[in-house]
Amino acid sequence: MHPVSTGDAPTPAGHYAQGVVHGGLVFVSGQLPVDARGEIVGIDDIEAQTRQTLRNVEAILRAAGSGLDRLVSVTIYITGRRHWAEVNRVYAELLGAHRPARAVIPVPEIKPGCCIEIQAVATTGES
Amino acid sequence: MHPVSTGDAPTPAGHYAQGVVHGGLVFVSGQLPVDARGEIVGIDDIEAQTRQTLRNVEAILRAAGSGLDRLVSVTIYITGRRHWAEVNRVYAELLGAHRPARAVIPVPEIKPGCCIEIQAVATTGES
Amino acid sequence: MHPVSTGDAPTPAGHYAQGVVHGGLVFVSGQLPVDARGEIVGIDDIEAQTRQTLRNVEAILRAAGSGLDRLVSVTIYITGRRHWAEVNRVYAELLGAHRPARAVIPVPEIKPGCCIEIQAVATTGES
Repeated sequence: MHPVSTGDAPTPAGHYAQGVVHGGLVFVSGQLPVDARGEIVGIDDIEAQTRQTLRNVEAILRAAGSGLDRLVSVTIYITGRRHWAEVNRVYAELLGAHRPARAVIPVPEIKPGCCIEIQAVATTGES
Repeated sequence: MHPVSTGDAPTPAGHYAQGVVHGGLVFVSGQLPVDARGEIVGIDDIEAQTRQTLRNVEAILRAAGSGLDRLVSVTIYITGRRHWAEVNRVYAELLGAHRPARAVIPVPEIKPGCCIEIQAVATTGES
Repeated sequence: MHPVSTGDAPTPAGHYAQGVVHGGLVFVSGQLPVDARGEIVGIDDIEAQTRQTLRNVEAILRAAGSGLDRLVSVTIYITGRRHWAEVNRVYAELLGAHRPARAVIPVPEIKPGCCIEIQAVATTGES
């Protein structure tokens, strides 16, 4: 088991690694719509926030030798089901032909200013 | 890694596969109380909704050569903890002797008319 | 696949195992701030509840030949983001140098009197 660390995604704000690699899988910590400098992106703009959050997931996957096209399972938390269509649209655009297992879960709040959080599991391609 | 696809569970409403098989595991997308034709089943009837949602999980597992008796970990999202006892009862009935790891998580909403969503990981039996 | 069972963590209140071992991984069921006798610990005391919940996770991991230092991925559900800092502090204390992947997800409710629930995946060390 080893942690993933990249300057291309936000530094963890708490006691966690950006991701962990074990047994041919990468477990990606819950990512927020925050850029690599730690600034929240696109407050109240779910399109921009979805894009930034997926970019963070992608940066962590790449640092582990993986990528969005190796995602196996994705859990998307959103602050209201009203965001579903827009999240799905941007997600489809960034994932292209690849369609992992997915669940979209409405929650009452995330971090103030954040409408979305994404947790994911991917293959490293080495297994 | 390959996607699971069956006509016995609802067609994905968004950019995801019903399930994904990788490394001897099946990752099942969040299933709703929707039948294979896309109709919500048992509005405000948590028993009927739990049954339908588990049937969808089962159909996807079977299409992957797995089954409810190979579930490893199940996450059940419900719109209020008041549903817990009834969900547990139907779940116990359908799973029989098999008891995977499980978490039941209350959420503020799912899809309108839906009280439950189930995400799961099972073994294919091939690993 | 085999279930984990220990008297050092609460007896499951429903149809689930405390944990399941498969393929070198331990999947731990959602743990609550409940002691091994079934009593809720530290009502309205997030520090005590975080500590008890992690102790339950640890007891289940140990019964599977694993431990907190083998955690791969942790999902922490809390009844309000206001608990984040205190949860993170206790979590850091108990995990020490080890930093698994993690997501902290606010939810509207857990069990009455409970502010936290933790779901986890760890390695057995045998894989």
